[in-house]
Amino acid sequence: MNPNPIQLFDTESSTFTYILNVPGTKDAVIVDPVDHNLDRDLAHIARLGLHLQIVLETHAHADHVTSAGKLRELTGAKAAVPSGCGIPPAEMQLNDGDVISFGDGETIQVIHTPGHTAGSMSYLWRGNLFSGDTLLIDGCGRTDFQSGSAEALYDSVTGKLFTLPGATRIWPGHDYKGQSVSTIGWEREHNARLANRSREDFIVLMNNLNLPRPRLIDVAVPANRNLGLPHG
Amino acid sequence: MNPNPIQLFDTESSTFTYILNVPGTKDAVIVDPVDHNLDRDLAHIARLGLHLQIVLETHAHADHVTSAGKLRELTGAKAAVPSGCGIPPAEMQLNDGDVISFGDGETIQVIHTPGHTAGSMSYLWRGNLFSGDTLLIDGCGRTDFQSGSAEALYDSVTGKLFTLPGATRIWPGHDYKGQSVSTIGWEREHNARLANRSREDFIVLMNNLNLPRPRLIDVAVPANRNLGLPHG
Ligand SMILES: [Fe+2]
Ligand SMILES: [Fe+2]
Repeated sequence: MNPNPIQLFDTESSTFTYILNVPGTKDAVIVDPVDHNLDRDLAHIARLGLHLQIVLETHAHADHVTSAGKLRELTGAKAAVPSGCGIPPAEMQLNDGDVISFGDGETIQVIHTPGHTAGSMSYLWRGNLFSGDTLLIDGCGRTDFQSGSAEALYDSVTGKLFTLPGATRIWPGHDYKGQSVSTIGWEREHNARLANRSREDFIVLMNNLNLPRPRLIDVAVPANRNLGLPHG
Repeated sequence: MNPNPIQLFDTESSTFTYILNVPGTKDAVIVDPVDHNLDRDLAHIARLGLHLQIVLETHAHADHVTSAGKLRELTGAKAAVPSGCGIPPAEMQLNDGDVISFGDGETIQVIHTPGHTAGSMSYLWRGNLFSGDTLLIDGCGRTDFQSGSAEALYDSVTGKLFTLPGATRIWPGHDYKGQSVSTIGWEREHNARLANRSREDFIVLMNNLNLPRPRLIDVAVPANRNLGLPHG
């Protein structure tokens, strides 16, 4: 049987942070933690009696600053990041097909899913997909900065993520509508941007979104390339 | 191994709703759903491909209206409520020590924990305690209406809930500080209201909180006694 992760939400940036842990065991991984929630996340780890092993990033975020560096300092966890995201201080530089190990035989598969950013990774743990900003619930991440590419995102989602088993649970990096979790089966059939849409139509759609530039991008991206720590 | 529930949050009333389901199976229970989240919750059930079997209430809420009646109508689920909460239309009237069954051998233990209201129940499923408004993270529910009693709440928490195994995960009915989950072990040691405090001191503390009357109480309680459906 597969446990769900513990899903935590940041109300400021609508970011999900996840704690991966097999109930009854101590070892844990945290995915995409946010700087101003450091105390909250440390409190959860303490209340659950967990040992944090790895801080895992899906990409170099443009909308919030990670607490990876501080969590690493305070807990002794290792930082694991996509090799293509330009985050040199992380000790684990991940490539497509890598397998991350933690705890008693737990494994996380690394799937390179470029599109939202060129380096973006998705992670698969026990039937749970952490899709970052690549695949969102009934949507997908934007593709207009950080070497984003609508073409690449379409290929990542339809060619890689949609080939996973239908029951695979999707835990996205953000949600702006109060949604929390979905499945590959549902998104393959119903996703408003990606289901039943040709690659050509998707590219036109994404290239005409005309979204505002993220308020924090010039601060957040350089900070996240240093795991959220001040540049020395 | 024990799965975590899926935890959903209502931003208006800071209420947690939970979906209980063993990943890989279809049968599910929902705990404390909120009326204006009906569509959200139905969408989660659809996306996860679940069959809702039971809508479970921890008590007759004073701060929000349940969607139990509508969920029952739309999904065919049964409504299960504490027998002491005065909710006659529910087909399952629960008493202390009852065991609720669903799915393939799943069982939920019913623990009568009076104090926040006289009828309040807590529910234990696979190492997960759904504590309603009895035990909150680093706090507890108020005891000044609906036959609430500080004495009873102290006895329920210290005499019943704190005797559960320390690793039991606590999923509360509300949180107002961005917390999500705790454990019996942590609360037994650290809960700001209940750890290391005598029954006498707790009663004085609770009887001097001077909280405002809940805005929705005169609407919500009668509505919840009819599972959130209009009185016919
Ligand atoms: Fe992003
Ligand atoms: Fe309540």
